[in-house]
Amino acid sequence: MADQDAQSRMGIEPHAVLRWEDLPDGPALVLLDQTRLPVEEVELVCTDVPALVRAIRVLAVRGAPLLGIAGAYGVALAAVRGDDVVEAAGLLERSRPTAVNLGYGVRRAVGAYRAAVGKGAGPERAAEAALAEARALHREDAEASGRMARHGLALLDELLPGPVHQLLTHCNTGALVSGGGGTAFAVALGAHREGRLRRLWVDETRPLLQGTRLTAYEAARNGMPYSLLTDNAAGSLFAAGKVDAVLIGADRIAADGSVANKVGSYPLAVLAKYHHVPFIVVAPTTTVDLDTVDGASINVEQRPGSEVTEFTSLRAEAAGGDVGGLLVAPVGAPAYNPAFDITPPELVTAIVTEGGVVSPVTGVGLAELCARSSQVTIS
Amino acid sequence: MADQDAQSRMGIEPHAVLRWEDLPDGPALVLLDQTRLPVEEVELVCTDVPALVRAIRVLAVRGAPLLGIAGAYGVALAAVRGDDVVEAAGLLERSRPTAVNLGYGVRRAVGAYRAAVGKGAGPERAAEAALAEARALHREDAEASGRMARHGLALLDELLPGPVHQLLTHCNTGALVSGGGGTAFAVALGAHREGRLRRLWVDETRPLLQGTRLTAYEAARNGMPYSLLTDNAAGSLFAAGKVDAVLIGADRIAADGSVANKVGSYPLAVLAKYHHVPFIVVAPTTTVDLDTVDGASINVEQRPGSEVTEFTSLRAEAAGGDVGGLLVAPVGAPAYNPAFDITPPELVTAIVTEGGVVSPVTGVGLAELCARSSQVTIS
Repeated sequence: MADQDAQSRMGIEPHAVLRWEDLPDGPALVLLDQTRLPVEEVELVCTDVPALVRAIRVLAVRGAPLLGIAGAYGVALAAVRGDDVVEAAGLLERSRPTAVNLGYGVRRAVGAYRAAVGKGAGPERAAEAALAEARALHREDAEASGRMARHGLALLDELLPGPVHQLLTHCNTGALVSGGGGTAFAVALGAHREGRLRRLWVDETRPLLQGTRLTAYEAARNGMPYSLLTDNAAGSLFAAGKVDAVLIGADRIAADGSVANKVGSYPLAVLAKYHHVPFIVVAPTTTVDLDTVDGASINVEQRPGSEVTEFTSLRAEAAGGDVGGLLVAPVGAPAYNPAFDITPPELVTAIVTEGGVVSPVTGVGLAELCARSSQVTIS
Repeated sequence: MADQDAQSRMGIEPHAVLRWEDLPDGPALVLLDQTRLPVEEVELVCTDVPALVRAIRVLAVRGAPLLGIAGAYGVALAAVRGDDVVEAAGLLERSRPTAVNLGYGVRRAVGAYRAAVGKGAGPERAAEAALAEARALHREDAEASGRMARHGLALLDELLPGPVHQLLTHCNTGALVSGGGGTAFAVALGAHREGRLRRLWVDETRPLLQGTRLTAYEAARNGMPYSLLTDNAAGSLFAAGKVDAVLIGADRIAADGSVANKVGSYPLAVLAKYHHVPFIVVAPTTTVDLDTVDGASINVEQRPGSEVTEFTSLRAEAAGGDVGGLLVAPVGAPAYNPAFDITPPELVTAIVTEGGVVSPVTGVGLAELCARSSQVTIS
């Protein structure tokens, strides 16, 4: 029992979330199927790019930093198999529109492939270069998690008076979205490990319940004090003074500091402003997209209304049954289902990256931090 | 097909929601089982108070005004059966703590019963008096719906510039909660019937999905233009200027104008304030509780965490299967699940009652309106 407890508190190993494997039949990207969690830990073996694109679309693999890593490995997979690398890159980039990291990871691997070809490498050597670039991105992202956690903890020290904190988070931003410990969740986990987490409030995050299914799973595995709540119960917590800070991730940060993140982030930002509670965004600098000038320019993915009107029976699906979603709305009910929302910079207390903290959030501050971070990467 | 369309646009008949029936075996309160909607229209026949209390607890019958009516009929049921009326009244009053109307309805029927006894009536005549009082409350509530709808429409005219409106609502406040057309929903339905409803945005209302299951059902039956959304997608609609006004009901209104309503109402009030959108509460004066001084004094019902961590399979339950909820969280995940939240008066643009509108919302204004309304009732 003690062993089981110890094991259950070890958290999630990065290689369990996503790894490259050279199987007898050829290479594969092996993913933990996040649609099955927490009911089952099932791996998804993607041996070609169309399989990976399907996994991305159904959110079996998800989360901005991890999508970047998956995109880079996807390009490597196409290259090693001898598939058309440019076509594969296009398929991957278009599989989800909002997370900037996906395109970033794809372009880095394609860049490495092309650079190798440009230097006279044959297809095999060029594929090795793409794979090496994917592995480098994977490693960098893991390191960035650690740095974001440290910067985030220092910021909490600065902003919050008490020794222990009540933190609210939305969606899932832990080891399941990253090559390392994650983004916002990594800060909360760091606080827990230092004995400074009083409670992690976990928004369920409708419609796909990433909070209930994934963040609760990670919190439980790490032995953190947490409670789930429906997204609309967060207001009561703010009103009762039970939220000291909000910590969320990001899928794209525009040049002006506008933050695209999982739908439900913006209402939390408005609640935080109204209650004078810090609203902190934690994301690697690869999430900042200086080519997108402002929030209005961000393409927000609209997903099927059936995600709102039906509940998918995870247990039935896990059992391999051909069971459709459980309809909870009247037949034919229309639904509005944006996957993300946009929080303007004036509602964001700070953006925490691996390269440091921007606060107050301004376009100039963000550009300077990105310039410093890319110098560090180049040097 | 045309007939079917016409029929499907007739809305919901009040007698289908709740009615008293003298069956061969004795009297019964017949309820539309709201937990089965929209999958099935199943009636629940309550022949004694314990059955009615169970129906109230599981929310088969729900909504502040309808709970008052059910409470009054429940007392009549006990009286007609010759059960202990005082014990029955206590059971009914305690079945849900937040809605003030439940206790109000119970006390009115008990009062009529006692008054008859005081005048020398035997048990049978006293029971008839309790039943007559329940029927009177039922009729008054139906009339109040019509008046609230008219006052609410006039208020929209006053507050909103355009000829057609985009209205956002939360939970269910239509014919399913009332002896008539309901409260907030009745205003939206009135706008629709006058060709002035551009769109009704329907919050799904987690955890029990009253919006998805009940408001969408009522909107569809009335042929209204509506869209469902997850509660946390409302922020995006406000930001896009797609909400002209918020219309909600209330379970209890304190003397200072604080409004207890379904959890998720308070975050909407904060969003409405931030976006300069009117936040309008529609409720009969029986929902005003002048004995509760302020919002902090309202007892907010905490419900089981399983409502958050499990999805109940309606279809399986409807089929009579002994199927528990579908666990979506890790085993043993704790959840915070308040059924209501409190919106302070400074966030409420107006309270619309059958007796008129209070705006701005102040304790004095509310007390004056209640005094006027009770004079009208007495005269």
